[in-house]
Amino acid sequence: MPEPIVRPGTVYLVGAGPGDPGLITVKGLQVLHRAQVVVYDRLVHPALLKEAPAAEHIFVGKQPGDPHVRQGEINALMIARARARLVVVRLKGGDPFVFGRGGEECEALLAAGVPFEVIPGVTAATAVPAAAGIPVTHRRHASAFAVITGHECPGRTDLDWEALARIPTLVVLMGLRTLPVVVGRLLEEGASPATPAAVVASGTLAEQRTVVGTLGTIAALVRQAGIGSPATLIVGDVVRLAERIGRAGPAQEVETVGAPT
Amino acid sequence: MPEPIVRPGTVYLVGAGPGDPGLITVKGLQVLHRAQVVVYDRLVHPALLKEAPAAEHIFVGKQPGDPHVRQGEINALMIARARARLVVVRLKGGDPFVFGRGGEECEALLAAGVPFEVIPGVTAATAVPAAAGIPVTHRRHASAFAVITGHECPGRTDLDWEALARIPTLVVLMGLRTLPVVVGRLLEEGASPATPAAVVASGTLAEQRTVVGTLGTIAALVRQAGIGSPATLIVGDVVRLAERIGRAGPAQEVETVGAPT
Repeated sequence: MPEPIVRPGTVYLVGAGPGDPGLITVKGLQVLHRAQVVVYDRLVHPALLKEAPAAEHIFVGKQPGDPHVRQGEINALMIARARARLVVVRLKGGDPFVFGRGGEECEALLAAGVPFEVIPGVTAATAVPAAAGIPVTHRRHASAFAVITGHECPGRTDLDWEALARIPTLVVLMGLRTLPVVVGRLLEEGASPATPAAVVASGTLAEQRTVVGTLGTIAALVRQAGIGSPATLIVGDVVRLAERIGRAGPAQEVETVGAPT
Repeated sequence: MPEPIVRPGTVYLVGAGPGDPGLITVKGLQVLHRAQVVVYDRLVHPALLKEAPAAEHIFVGKQPGDPHVRQGEINALMIARARARLVVVRLKGGDPFVFGRGGEECEALLAAGVPFEVIPGVTAATAVPAAAGIPVTHRRHASAFAVITGHECPGRTDLDWEALARIPTLVVLMGLRTLPVVVGRLLEEGASPATPAAVVASGTLAEQRTVVGTLGTIAALVRQAGIGSPATLIVGDVVRLAERIGRAGPAQEVETVGAPT
């Protein structure tokens, strides 16, 4: 595979993928190997940092409960390192442009006159369901899917829950803390409590756990199972396939609690 | 990066990524290097086949106008090769579970008792907009995105256009041939003709072309520009960012025709 051109003084926004470090792209890894500075988030796998052992590693993730580095500081950090003519990799969990503030970081770099390049990644929105045996689309079950984040959603007033409730497959990233709120809003908008729903924690990693239920049961099942973040919620008929496809693959040893009725 | 375990007699459904061969995952490439049979689609980049030079290469893609290999034949082919104890890679454009019939292929393998594993890929749904400088989500512009395919949509009666018209960012894969139909349905459901819209052809490849307009102008602009398949349609305020982010990156030499008003 040919090596990409890597320029000093440029910021590379690289998607680290959904969890499993092997799911970074070839191009992303090639650029990471040439990094002099790696600015990384909380959900980036430690194995990826080992691919750039000589680079300066700067953690800018949000720690639950800790005061976190603000976006302006992250931008200032990247701009300063790039102006020092270093190869800067901004390594972000999943894909930089799927709820990753990649757009805002590009705007800041643009305003500062710092060149940048975006190297997309495998988003958890499709890969985490896949790892649990759930295709987000299926000719018989779902001709469309939608993606939101649970991270900020109780505070958001711009989500159109009525429209979201009518999309065949809905994926909610970072969906654990606000799970009861999201489920409640979908039910209020007329989604059936019998709609299949699954929560996948630590998706694509060895410690992956899957809980399968319905909109009516999923919040209680997840609480009973005691699973932790990061977790992805998937709502829709495609969840039925987890029972079959999810148990079959050799690398998909998922624990499934409950089942859609 | 550790080598994954690759088993003879297993089918690996591998996402080839959105176009640029460097956007396959590291794990996908590692498995491809061990393939004895590669069953591949039309949008898979030829450079990826060169990564498995000794393997049997079987083309099963649809050619426009040609009679195409039917899904049942593809399934039978994979099952036969796997039963012959070969390492079979089913290489699919984008991600196997995003409008890739990956779910159906898994069900067929399951019914035949053939073990399989899904290795997700970077979907064109997020990476093609990114390559044109369009983040599918953005804190100020879009808190949700939805994805459909234009491929079969005139014949589909199960798409809820009213709901789709209300999602902030809509991505339509394979969106060229049915572009006027999709635009017409969104306008009928109340979307404003001033809504920004872009079509990106050959996204992530050197020959990428982007046309930017609005729902009211995009069909005519695309016709004038004479761009070809594969093409991705993106509708929503995030398209405005193409004008800025899309022109900035060193690897993003996009031709932009027209602009949202």
